[in-house]
Amino acid sequence: MKSLIDSLNFPEDLKNMNENKMKILSKEIRMFLIDSVSKTGGHLSSNLGVVELTLSLFKAFDFNRDKIVWDVGHQSYVYKILTGRKEGFKNLRQFNGLSGFPKRNESKYDSFDTGHSSTSISAALGIARARDLKNENYNVIAVIGDGALTGGMALEALNDAGFRKTKIVIILNDNQMSISLNVGGLSRYLNKLRMEPRYNKLKADIHTSLNSSNLGKNIAYKMSKVKDSIKQLVVPSMFFENMGVKYIGPIDGHDIKSMTEVFTKVKDIEGPVIIHTITKKGKGYALAEQSPSKYHGVGPFDLESGESRISSKTTYSKAFGEALVDISDKHKDIVAITAAMPDGTGLKNFASKFPERFFDVGIAEQHAVTLAAGMASNGLKPVFAVYSTFLQRGFDQVFHDVCMQNLPVIFAIDRCGIVGDDGETHQGIIDISYLSMIPNISIVAPKCVEEMPLLLKWAIQKNAPVAIRYPRGADIIDYMTPLKEIKEGVWEVISEGTDVCIIASGKMVQHAILAKELLKDKNLNPKIINATFIKPIDKKMLQKLKDEGYNILTIEDNSLAGGLGSSILQSLNDINYKGNIKLLGYKDEFIPQGSVDILYKEYGLDPQSISDAVIKL
Amino acid sequence: MKSLIDSLNFPEDLKNMNENKMKILSKEIRMFLIDSVSKTGGHLSSNLGVVELTLSLFKAFDFNRDKIVWDVGHQSYVYKILTGRKEGFKNLRQFNGLSGFPKRNESKYDSFDTGHSSTSISAALGIARARDLKNENYNVIAVIGDGALTGGMALEALNDAGFRKTKIVIILNDNQMSISLNVGGLSRYLNKLRMEPRYNKLKADIHTSLNSSNLGKNIAYKMSKVKDSIKQLVVPSMFFENMGVKYIGPIDGHDIKSMTEVFTKVKDIEGPVIIHTITKKGKGYALAEQSPSKYHGVGPFDLESGESRISSKTTYSKAFGEALVDISDKHKDIVAITAAMPDGTGLKNFASKFPERFFDVGIAEQHAVTLAAGMASNGLKPVFAVYSTFLQRGFDQVFHDVCMQNLPVIFAIDRCGIVGDDGETHQGIIDISYLSMIPNISIVAPKCVEEMPLLLKWAIQKNAPVAIRYPRGADIIDYMTPLKEIKEGVWEVISEGTDVCIIASGKMVQHAILAKELLKDKNLNPKIINATFIKPIDKKMLQKLKDEGYNILTIEDNSLAGGLGSSILQSLNDINYKGNIKLLGYKDEFIPQGSVDILYKEYGLDPQSISDAVIKL
Repeated sequence: MKSLIDSLNFPEDLKNMNENKMKILSKEIRMFLIDSVSKTGGHLSSNLGVVELTLSLFKAFDFNRDKIVWDVGHQSYVYKILTGRKEGFKNLRQFNGLSGFPKRNESKYDSFDTGHSSTSISAALGIARARDLKNENYNVIAVIGDGALTGGMALEALNDAGFRKTKIVIILNDNQMSISLNVGGLSRYLNKLRMEPRYNKLKADIHTSLNSSNLGKNIAYKMSKVKDSIKQLVVPSMFFENMGVKYIGPIDGHDIKSMTEVFTKVKDIEGPVIIHTITKKGKGYALAEQSPSKYHGVGPFDLESGESRISSKTTYSKAFGEALVDISDKHKDIVAITAAMPDGTGLKNFASKFPERFFDVGIAEQHAVTLAAGMASNGLKPVFAVYSTFLQRGFDQVFHDVCMQNLPVIFAIDRCGIVGDDGETHQGIIDISYLSMIPNISIVAPKCVEEMPLLLKWAIQKNAPVAIRYPRGADIIDYMTPLKEIKEGVWEVISEGTDVCIIASGKMVQHAILAKELLKDKNLNPKIINATFIKPIDKKMLQKLKDEGYNILTIEDNSLAGGLGSSILQSLNDINYKGNIKLLGYKDEFIPQGSVDILYKEYGLDPQSISDAVIKL
Repeated sequence: MKSLIDSLNFPEDLKNMNENKMKILSKEIRMFLIDSVSKTGGHLSSNLGVVELTLSLFKAFDFNRDKIVWDVGHQSYVYKILTGRKEGFKNLRQFNGLSGFPKRNESKYDSFDTGHSSTSISAALGIARARDLKNENYNVIAVIGDGALTGGMALEALNDAGFRKTKIVIILNDNQMSISLNVGGLSRYLNKLRMEPRYNKLKADIHTSLNSSNLGKNIAYKMSKVKDSIKQLVVPSMFFENMGVKYIGPIDGHDIKSMTEVFTKVKDIEGPVIIHTITKKGKGYALAEQSPSKYHGVGPFDLESGESRISSKTTYSKAFGEALVDISDKHKDIVAITAAMPDGTGLKNFASKFPERFFDVGIAEQHAVTLAAGMASNGLKPVFAVYSTFLQRGFDQVFHDVCMQNLPVIFAIDRCGIVGDDGETHQGIIDISYLSMIPNISIVAPKCVEEMPLLLKWAIQKNAPVAIRYPRGADIIDYMTPLKEIKEGVWEVISEGTDVCIIASGKMVQHAILAKELLKDKNLNPKIINATFIKPIDKKMLQKLKDEGYNILTIEDNSLAGGLGSSILQSLNDINYKGNIKLLGYKDEFIPQGSVDILYKEYGLDPQSISDAVIKL
């Protein structure tokens, strides 16, 4: 017998599907997700958690008219399967393949692109207000996790929604997790709601309550009755009600019938409404249920054992985490901050060894940065470990709260440069640019994992803002020789050479070394310099290069606009350098998903392209 | 008789001052504020509103030990007067003079620098956590307005404070205003709290309640009793309590006795507590009470009439506001968004003419940007009018939500370049840098106010993200000839010349023209180009300049890092230009307060410095 998932027309056939078939379909979807993601890698736990939620949405809404915004968007796989994109999962997150996030240019069913957290209510409000001004009539839905809800902009949006009473449906997908375990007063509060005895009572009552009203038969009747029947569902949740947002819940996020009924009913509510659903992250795959954060975003893994199929060299994140624990033993003033990413940033060990010095503030990068500034202003040495792409959220706080007061905050910036599969929303290719324009901050990059402790120590003693930038993953070359000591603002000569000097930073130093290998055949021998300091620039070194008549090639895993090459070019112009200069980096476009290797090649940063550039110079 | 304000030692003498003298002192402070600000300009309404609040803080706390963070900080004048800085008010907000904001390098009594909104709770939390880790013992206080409280990062910080139960005192200075009238569900909620009959009852009860407890005599007794006596003050405010933050209030923010008693008592509460005080913005100056937003930040004005002493040429803000109203008559899809600045951004007329198309979202730049993205994704043409320095808060949203989807959002960026008196926290000198690195966005600048309608029209029809950047104030040269039409990416030749070509943008075009005047004496005649388009660069024009052998001088009211000059230099390098190039703009430092003229001179952007640079080239 052919499976439902392959024999039906989605989303049309979902409307009239009976409860039993829905259950079978849920199982098939889970099996497909587990199997597919184990091959390609991707986000697993969050998608396993929303199978029934997504099916219920299709039952209640019509996505040929209604518009939905998935917060963060990594939980949109089920939605993608049900909107005709199942075949695409073979190439999930690959170059030119299906995106792991909603993409308007991928399907008419995607209303708004997401990737970063906490944007969905703002976007949904915007879509709904456009609808109202154009006198159109359909539902706008935002699906947001309990973790993302604590991001400041989500609260800003709730505040606005509650004030203007714009009609939107917000579905709170509460799995008590963001990526890791959730934190924050709000999270504790949601927990309290979940614990209410009436939650269970509600589960029993809900069918009666819904069935006893005769909605859908008569509009006039509907309007008069809907308030009463809804009232029974409303647990007084002062937090949301005080904001001016109607609250309904909590309801079981794996009970399709209940959810469908509630979702259908709320369409009649004017103004903003939030429906609190309780789901289980990783549901249906035992290994993921036990360790949902491990299976949050994964590479290909073995289905039985759950073990990753990717070899495990020491990553930069791990090297950072270990170096921080080491150094913090001696330096009692060091504290560590994360915005809901203790695992990804390598802070797990620090957290268990120094729990009182570890602060997970939830998905709240703005607050994280200024919290660090406050701590630094009062004698601590805070280290905020954060992904490059997410620190964009705290840009003003780095500028205004940390650097303007020249406070000793260390930014341990992970996932710099191309991150690969997550695509354009997650590439870390503008941090050099957005940090270089900020006075007082130093920006450094290790050229290999072994340099991490040295740079971290240097940053701690510097007593001013420092950004340490490092890539996802591990080294390419195993035989790198780490620096023995850091001299402020001084670059390292990796190898001597003639005619052309390559100035590279971080991981790109390894690409430069590989390029030099390739050039041996052509009898070319470029000099290679490691710009340990991206800011400040080593001006003495540049003067020397000018005096010695080198042409210069700069390489960076960052945008060309305002990047390392840009700084070097300005410094060379200041000293009236007239040699030839070529800058390699990302041109003015968003860099799509794809494997790191493919993208380096595509954008001219792989060893071969670098060697070609040397030849041209 | 010598006045109290001049005869006492502050802050020491405040401790034991009786109620009567406090009243006299309050009056003296108000008179001093009004007189002083009428001469120098500055923030008036907010400071008049917190006279009693500040005095009560000194009664209850000891700022030789306790630390206070003033949110935004423009309401810190009274605090400055009472911490020995009264004399400085002669030079308030002038170059090298007293800052209008808290500054750690100005006084030991300033614990944390502020300027942008909503940072105080994060900073205070950081300071308090450092205190706790160091086992120190003092109070940490954040004073935050009801407007600033709706900023996302303030809510992120509340969420964190409530979770970890860090001991801090948050004073909510509720004047029902941010700069203009307040908006948002939270604001409506605060209003409800204010309206509670118990507010008035509380005012009567409070003395009895506080006096009936015998605090301060015996520590053990204190600890057992404090909870009971506090309980009576607590109005059940589920919003804050749900976040995990104890709520007390509302109390009369002009009643020194009540406030002092409450502030004293809350020192014994463990964990975070928020005290809701009600104040009147502009209190004590009739004109400011009537129009608090007019007297929010003012230039010098006449005391009797309240009229500004500054001449009123057409400002860029006004020109923008008028152009927008004009164009919106025809284009029904245009909507306007502000983050609590309808006056400053010139949107007042739009708001009254098209109320249903006008959205004031409160101090919430992140949400404002993504709301605009949502609207644009559904067919509208949103215009977000915002100051350059505040758009920094929405940087990630411009990148991730607007430009990545290439949505037609227009950013009308006011107060670009040097703003002057507000100083380093408010200078708009990095917007070119932080926008230039973002793909898909065009950046344009009018060279005179008359070009505003033309650029706005161009932006509307462009159907992609556009930033229009313009300065505070009005034109310097009255006889500028506006462009007749905009050709995308094409620069304007203002005047022909020889040897040197000046490329300037926006207001700097006028400086270039004045510099050219100065150079006539030296028989020098530079060519002047107006870079209407800051992005994209006019590459054809650059090729022509190269071919014709010009040396090039770029001028911008922006940081040199990643600015217009940086883009031009990269483009010239791409075409192998070997002439001489000099970039004028701000070097790598924060630009302090001072008059615009002084700062241009100090940083080499006045006509004289420009003409000197031409001579050197």
